[in-house]
Amino acid sequence: MSFDMTALFRPDLPAAGGRWGGYPEYSFVGGHNDGDNVPFGGLSEAAVSVLRREGSSLASYNVGGSPQGYAPLREFIAGSLESRASTPTDPEDVLVVSGSLQALDLVNGVLLESGDTVIVEMATYGGMIARLQRLGVEVVGVHLDDDGIRSDHLGELLSDMAARGVKPKYIYTIPTVQNPTGSVMPVERRLEVLALAREHGVAIFEDDCYADLVFDGSRPPTFRALDDGGGQVVYCGSFSKSIAPALRVGYLVADWAVLGQMMALKNDAGTGAIEQMVLAEYASSHFDDHVRQLASVLEGKCRAMTDAVTASFGDAASFTMPKGGIFVWVTFAEGVNTGRLAKPALEAGVEFNPGAGWSADREWGRRRLRLCFGHPSVETIRQGVGVLADVFRDQGVI
Amino acid sequence: MSFDMTALFRPDLPAAGGRWGGYPEYSFVGGHNDGDNVPFGGLSEAAVSVLRREGSSLASYNVGGSPQGYAPLREFIAGSLESRASTPTDPEDVLVVSGSLQALDLVNGVLLESGDTVIVEMATYGGMIARLQRLGVEVVGVHLDDDGIRSDHLGELLSDMAARGVKPKYIYTIPTVQNPTGSVMPVERRLEVLALAREHGVAIFEDDCYADLVFDGSRPPTFRALDDGGGQVVYCGSFSKSIAPALRVGYLVADWAVLGQMMALKNDAGTGAIEQMVLAEYASSHFDDHVRQLASVLEGKCRAMTDAVTASFGDAASFTMPKGGIFVWVTFAEGVNTGRLAKPALEAGVEFNPGAGWSADREWGRRRLRLCFGHPSVETIRQGVGVLADVFRDQGVI
Repeated sequence: MSFDMTALFRPDLPAAGGRWGGYPEYSFVGGHNDGDNVPFGGLSEAAVSVLRREGSSLASYNVGGSPQGYAPLREFIAGSLESRASTPTDPEDVLVVSGSLQALDLVNGVLLESGDTVIVEMATYGGMIARLQRLGVEVVGVHLDDDGIRSDHLGELLSDMAARGVKPKYIYTIPTVQNPTGSVMPVERRLEVLALAREHGVAIFEDDCYADLVFDGSRPPTFRALDDGGGQVVYCGSFSKSIAPALRVGYLVADWAVLGQMMALKNDAGTGAIEQMVLAEYASSHFDDHVRQLASVLEGKCRAMTDAVTASFGDAASFTMPKGGIFVWVTFAEGVNTGRLAKPALEAGVEFNPGAGWSADREWGRRRLRLCFGHPSVETIRQGVGVLADVFRDQGVI
Repeated sequence: MSFDMTALFRPDLPAAGGRWGGYPEYSFVGGHNDGDNVPFGGLSEAAVSVLRREGSSLASYNVGGSPQGYAPLREFIAGSLESRASTPTDPEDVLVVSGSLQALDLVNGVLLESGDTVIVEMATYGGMIARLQRLGVEVVGVHLDDDGIRSDHLGELLSDMAARGVKPKYIYTIPTVQNPTGSVMPVERRLEVLALAREHGVAIFEDDCYADLVFDGSRPPTFRALDDGGGQVVYCGSFSKSIAPALRVGYLVADWAVLGQMMALKNDAGTGAIEQMVLAEYASSHFDDHVRQLASVLEGKCRAMTDAVTASFGDAASFTMPKGGIFVWVTFAEGVNTGRLAKPALEAGVEFNPGAGWSADREWGRRRLRLCFGHPSVETIRQGVGVLADVFRDQGVI
């Protein structure tokens, strides 16, 4: 008789998923990227050269070096933060992680307990909201405008919380190519947010995962660079969006007091060394050119997506033009519930992210949705958005 | 003034580590492998061929496939389990993970709560003991002989626990090339352990991470293969020992009811794809030959290590000859405390694993230690063991 191991499961597990069923015809979800712009030729040359030179060092965990990550990769990251984002960085303040999701887990692991409060942007990365909720953390949304966090609203929130004796642990912000709105926060706004946070003793968790994909190539200085007093910002970035998401290499930048504590929680015996070595070898000579080319392709796809939304939905949909990245955030009339449309859309072959899952306040997000355009071709984008609009019409929503 | 983020830390964190300080002259710890036998030429050829063929699929998470892992790698793992360990396996029952440490975390995440009990081998992998203790799990050691778990003692333990109303969740075993003893459990013993566990409704967690490194190449069938009724065993393996530890690719094999639930906890957006692709490409044509060659080199190093221990320590040290792997488990006289010798040894340039950390019962392990021989050269092994014996003599222990 078969043994029933499920009878031994702990009782509070999240729902198990089903078998993976493949992608629908028009997949507008997920951080996938443009297939024609994965620099696999360069990556493969890099693999040959770095493995020939240093392959035997794979015999040791962390290729015989620091568990902070492969030194040449940390040096590239530090140099790139300085040259691309005006953020002078010591490679000793960099921790390479197994994708930026591990960065989220490490920051949360060090700072958060059940019952804590965190401020996030009203529309933000759904995976972060889900993580915070699983930890039993109170998630409070701060309103956004086209320049990101509205500092007037942030001030109100912080004062209200202080009056109630609540001190949030950190403000989670995606300031450059905000997910999902695609906005870029100007320097002045960053300085206001930093000052308010400092006044209230709140840390900043700056998620810069999409920042390399600004369409016009101009990246403002990071919060971490603008943090004059120092110590207030923990920063994370990733190669998933700039090189390829199937690689799992991200990074954290923080002062040692924070980084050393996060390392005590990173008990995975290091991040995959071949990916680190290949990335370091490739990126040190090709990164800027590659990202320039990729951003220009994505800008074209962004235009195709926004044009298709305008053509197919007309006045029923509104959005702010993204300044970079791989997604657009679309808002419909009061009363629309995009969550209810996910199933009929999928049946018609279209997948999108309903806004509730990408919003600190599900009710606020209900009439919104996120459309990703990095992976599908321009033709797939046009057709798929047309099909989606048909579903909206069939359902009597527009 | 600098912002003090440490004031926001949650209160129950493990101690933060210091900066990495490099390896000592004679490093006999860690799962490092032989530097001359990393097949980096083959890995680099594999990288070129697989990236040229499928590189653009890196643009999607999980290279556009199932989050269970790169399909050709799961097929290789399944085929290899059948041909090398008499374990017919469906690739759909394989989950590729980011190193076997993630496998431990996923199994524990699904099965364990604080207050649960787990049975481990009296001498076992230190990283597992540390994980179980952090989870607040009661760790009970079952005695070993040269054939692994003593089923008479296991029977006693299970009956005593049943009488006290305690039902352990699982038995954690490393049956083939046991860590740290290097023993291989014969089939009859496996069947006895399985039967006892089934009688008491206890699952088996089979960790086969070192199993490819049996010196004589003969691997018994796994617990998973011997589990006639089915459903009782969750199995994990790794490429860290057979290919290179700096790669972070391991795997879990379990029935879907268990695997699907573990996948709901694996929220890392997949395991690094380049490492999976390169491994699959390389291993499918070179794995058996490579492992045969590697095991023969390791057997030589094992002989060097055990000869050195005998030459330098004489009757003061005893050990059972490992049947495979990269470590030997050495026992000293009653009253010796190897933990106290770690510091003077390190000052003399020698690092070893004190036995207490590798034992379910720290007191039992105190007079034992683990010496790893995969990475150092034969000459380094000889010299280092000599230096270690000098330290033992200087400290009046032998």
